[in-house]
Amino acid sequence: MRISALADAVGLPVATVKFYLREGLLQPGVATSATQASYDESHVRRLRLVRALIGSVGLSVQQARAILELVDDPGDDLYSTLGRAVGALPPAVERREGDDPYPRARAALAALGQVFDPEYAAVAQLESALAAAESAGMPISDERLQAYGDLLRKLAAFDLERMPDEPHAAVEYTVLGTALYEPVVVALRRLAHQDEAARRRGIPS
Amino acid sequence: MRISALADAVGLPVATVKFYLREGLLQPGVATSATQASYDESHVRRLRLVRALIGSVGLSVQQARAILELVDDPGDDLYSTLGRAVGALPPAVERREGDDPYPRARAALAALGQVFDPEYAAVAQLESALAAAESAGMPISDERLQAYGDLLRKLAAFDLERMPDEPHAAVEYTVLGTALYEPVVVALRRLAHQDEAARRRGIPS
Repeated sequence: MRISALADAVGLPVATVKFYLREGLLQPGVATSATQASYDESHVRRLRLVRALIGSVGLSVQQARAILELVDDPGDDLYSTLGRAVGALPPAVERREGDDPYPRARAALAALGQVFDPEYAAVAQLESALAAAESAGMPISDERLQAYGDLLRKLAAFDLERMPDEPHAAVEYTVLGTALYEPVVVALRRLAHQDEAARRRGIPS
Repeated sequence: MRISALADAVGLPVATVKFYLREGLLQPGVATSATQASYDESHVRRLRLVRALIGSVGLSVQQARAILELVDDPGDDLYSTLGRAVGALPPAVERREGDDPYPRARAALAALGQVFDPEYAAVAQLESALAAAESAGMPISDERLQAYGDLLRKLAAFDLERMPDEPHAAVEYTVLGTALYEPVVVALRRLAHQDEAARRRGIPS
């Protein structure tokens, strides 16, 4: 298909598609003349990914490029690549230095019996979240940590069981499954609260 | 205690405490002279709440005031007050008009057997999240919706069981439990993914 049909297929302006081509986020088509190229389903798929990263997740072109490089070249150590890809997603968290920079997250992960790797961005994220709850006078209790941790491990197991085996697809699945499904999880939690409150109030649902 | 001791107790500059007093976010102390007032534990508690809403959640003074008014005056219909308080939290989502403005969220909540109330802000939030996943070519499958929905209802039941009976405290618990625990949930989900990936890779944790 031509670039106009490609743009139509994804619902983006042709100018945006050309911009992504120039920025190297979208692979070139096959040249069919000096001024035209032909695109296929692989371009449609890639454009959807680029649009998701920039449009929905809100990444800059540079941040999107860093993630796309990991999708394109996952390397031999998929586990570490997945960690770096997720670490490149928002929220941006400041890494801390020092002997024990993440004491709350370290204790929480020990209590849950989970891997603690201070290089992993979500550790700093958990530390900030636990500190904010604590300073508001509503620290996460041990009981709540166990309950949340247990349910979220079940959710993670569900996600991992469905991760594609092919490495490029696995990175894409992990990045989008993290960035795009988090807002679903958060909205569903709020709606579950509402539903639960309605039931306790005696409203039939 | 004097204002300086109050500020110390919470770790805020005296100027910030005075600003919150002027803005009416913090109730006045008991005047002990023409220029001095005395503050107690209720002020410490309130300051922690104000700081959480403005500092951690990132609300404006005006947005924080709207929530504090619901904490201070929960009214007779607690269920509706809780809905309005949570609806005043980020993310800001545009309400849509029309016959069926939230088709994805409506279908998802019907599939889960949960309350569907288009006035509730999280419905618009869920609609956007589902639409973004769909347009990236990774729609939430029925199977995933059921799995996530089931686990998040269990999480919500845990939260509701611990909600204080006293209405002012219930609004405060709901607002902070939503805004401050969401980042904990999101970070724990990412860390559960990492832990699950490590287990599958054969790394002892």
